[in-house]
Amino acid sequence: RGTQFMSPICRILFSLSVDTESLQRQIEELSSFSNAPAPSVTRILYSEKDVSARRYIKNLMALSGLAVKEDAVGNIFGRWDGYEPELAPVSTGSHIDAIPYSGKYDGVVGVLGAIEAINVLKRSGFKPKRSLEVIMFTSEEPTRFGISCLGRFTFFILNLLISTFTILTALKLVYPEVKNWQNFLTTVDGQNISFSDAAKFAGYENAQDLSSVFLPKGSYSAFIELHIEQGPILEEEATSIGVVTAIAAPASIKVDFEGNGGHAGAVLMPMRNDAGLAAAELALAVEKHVLESGSIDTVGTVGILELHPGAINSIPSKAHLEIDTRDINEARRNTVIEKIRSSALNICKKRSVKLSEFKIVNQDPPALSDDSIIKATESACKELNLSYKKMISRAYHDSLFMPGYSHKPEEFAASEDVANGVRVLAHTC
Amino acid sequence: RGTQFMSPICRILFSLSVDTESLQRQIEELSSFSNAPAPSVTRILYSEKDVSARRYIKNLMALSGLAVKEDAVGNIFGRWDGYEPELAPVSTGSHIDAIPYSGKYDGVVGVLGAIEAINVLKRSGFKPKRSLEVIMFTSEEPTRFGISCLGRFTFFILNLLISTFTILTALKLVYPEVKNWQNFLTTVDGQNISFSDAAKFAGYENAQDLSSVFLPKGSYSAFIELHIEQGPILEEEATSIGVVTAIAAPASIKVDFEGNGGHAGAVLMPMRNDAGLAAAELALAVEKHVLESGSIDTVGTVGILELHPGAINSIPSKAHLEIDTRDINEARRNTVIEKIRSSALNICKKRSVKLSEFKIVNQDPPALSDDSIIKATESACKELNLSYKKMISRAYHDSLFMPGYSHKPEEFAASEDVANGVRVLAHTC
Ligand SMILES: [Mn+2]
Ligand SMILES: [Mn+2]
Ligand SMILES: [Mn+2]
Ligand SMILES: [Mn+2]
Repeated sequence: RGTQFMSPICRILFSLSVDTESLQRQIEELSSFSNAPAPSVTRILYSEKDVSARRYIKNLMALSGLAVKEDAVGNIFGRWDGYEPELAPVSTGSHIDAIPYSGKYDGVVGVLGAIEAINVLKRSGFKPKRSLEVIMFTSEEPTRFGISCLGRFTFFILNLLISTFTILTALKLVYPEVKNWQNFLTTVDGQNISFSDAAKFAGYENAQDLSSVFLPKGSYSAFIELHIEQGPILEEEATSIGVVTAIAAPASIKVDFEGNGGHAGAVLMPMRNDAGLAAAELALAVEKHVLESGSIDTVGTVGILELHPGAINSIPSKAHLEIDTRDINEARRNTVIEKIRSSALNICKKRSVKLSEFKIVNQDPPALSDDSIIKATESACKELNLSYKKMISRAYHDSLFMPGYSHKPEEFAASEDVANGVRVLAHTC
Repeated sequence: RGTQFMSPICRILFSLSVDTESLQRQIEELSSFSNAPAPSVTRILYSEKDVSARRYIKNLMALSGLAVKEDAVGNIFGRWDGYEPELAPVSTGSHIDAIPYSGKYDGVVGVLGAIEAINVLKRSGFKPKRSLEVIMFTSEEPTRFGISCLGRFTFFILNLLISTFTILTALKLVYPEVKNWQNFLTTVDGQNISFSDAAKFAGYENAQDLSSVFLPKGSYSAFIELHIEQGPILEEEATSIGVVTAIAAPASIKVDFEGNGGHAGAVLMPMRNDAGLAAAELALAVEKHVLESGSIDTVGTVGILELHPGAINSIPSKAHLEIDTRDINEARRNTVIEKIRSSALNICKKRSVKLSEFKIVNQDPPALSDDSIIKATESACKELNLSYKKMISRAYHDSLFMPGYSHKPEEFAASEDVANGVRVLAHTC
């Protein structure tokens, strides 16, 4: 298809290519702010490396001519004023925190890609009517304080009218623990450091002052996030762009088993009530119940399984599991949860182990994308002559996909795919 | 039975009772040198708490009039000279290191009880012909550097003629990793601290100088260890003393599985190769193969199971297990090991997971007690009118048992049982 069939703006975008090289270099540089040896990336909220990475992002925003602002918990905003600056801006962005031993792309391409999309638009001579804002959300991953999408949660809590599914999802992220924000400030991490002390360490002295964090209704007109797919579909089908129409409904569960422990040599098998074996059985039961759903869209994972005391010559007296299960069908996911619960109870009965905790930490419904954003993205793909596919987001929040895997050191996305994503993003904005 | 049927020495011992109160108080005091909240005890080799506990033991030895000596790695010796001091001494003792979140008695009663046995003998007016020596071995448990019975290993390596099974066992503790002692000095713990640096921290500057650690052949004429049973038999049968005739053959195995990991929401079930589920299956297979042996004497435990990266929204890409299996029948135990190995291979095939390690860390044969020590202990029990039972030691090294459980915070032994053990020990020495 030649450029003669394109709209004028699209023709400009097509001719001005994305600076793929710079973008790739920025991805590499950002990945060096990490507490894990390369190619792994570990970047924990408010850690020294996180602070350095934040500084890097703010510098890039400034270099692109954006007005940089930060709120009390470290959500970072880079604004390009439109010629009608009183209109609510369009926003785009993602996160840069990285779970332990993950990779370079998750979240990062949504932030760096958004800044590059602004660059593309600026180079094209485009002047926006609404202001455009790049947002780096302060904490996406649940690594440090056990809740995810912290930035979104605080940021959008009073911002009900924003018409994208991401915001809807964010609103559903009101975990029981953080319903009272003041309580959350004293939540501690594994090293017993409170959220507000951690924030202070990172330079956010006023994390307890929420006046700057909760924004008035209607502060933004739309939000779109560019993200790697985190699954195999786009890559396998050689499709450039995934347009997210719905988000799978995620739930997470914490389980604790307790037995009597004892010496691994001395306590005979019939006398045991091994909490570790109870946990092993439950992990396999999670897989079984997920597969029983019969749908490819049901997933379930035991990502955390910890034994206490954790010594080779001790029978585990305690076992802790954390289970993640998701589905695009909420009822089907809830059936899985109930099956997991009854398996836990049966295992306890069979093994004379105590179920000291079975806690559903969150249990969110699925969310649907806003039609206007779906349409805008589809038409951008068509005009840019890029293949696309309507998809379900299974990773909670992402609305515009390129091929790529995540949550492992070999996390990967091809430069050209990232560039295509940036093109579509620039066009959709 | 009246004292008139007892031998003269036994009559003296019987009349002079063990100072149960002091002994119990010492057990309590020693348990306060711990890195875990009471009633749990955690005391890791060469840690600050270990150093304090060592000081406490040396003081007690000195108060009992023993000549205290320490070798380069911290084996502690308290000697009471006999009236024929040129004869090889009789030795008794145990360890005071405590695995994470264990209790007050494991090892401790063998050290404090030995010192009190000396006190009993001294109060009785008894003068030993051979010198008596109380030994506190420097590291019993495998917690810090992954090998157990370190004190025994170094201490007895050139001491072949000692005629007790404990020493024989110690000789079989030559793990592949420590065949070369110089290599072992550079072995590191979980915090990357080398053995010799850790020893230095504890005040053992010359841990690399082994001239004081390896003793010449025949340095001791016998060794006996007082220990809580670490199992239910003596308590259930209301028997005072267990006389160990053989030690179960222990083996330990390290296993690592590797899969692809990925995002817990995004990677669909058929695409997964979850290393954590492979580990869960293997843990259950260990239990199954142990039970298949058909013998009550076969035991097997997965005390360590670790997932990587260990995040709720990540599919485990790596899983590490440590398996302990023991039996009084070596061939039967080896059959279990081979079944575990083939289960590991089958699980890998089924789950498309890689078996990156299957390492038998040690695989010791059972050991038999020296007949002369068995007989001496039996006659001590008879003379003291205490019920006793010939038993298998399943916890590796202990030769004289009282009722009691171990390797958990509720670890317990009744004062009277400890006192009986001390009486028998004093008499046997
Ligand atoms: Mn992520
Ligand atoms: Mn992400
Ligand atoms: Mn022990
Ligand atoms: Mn012990």
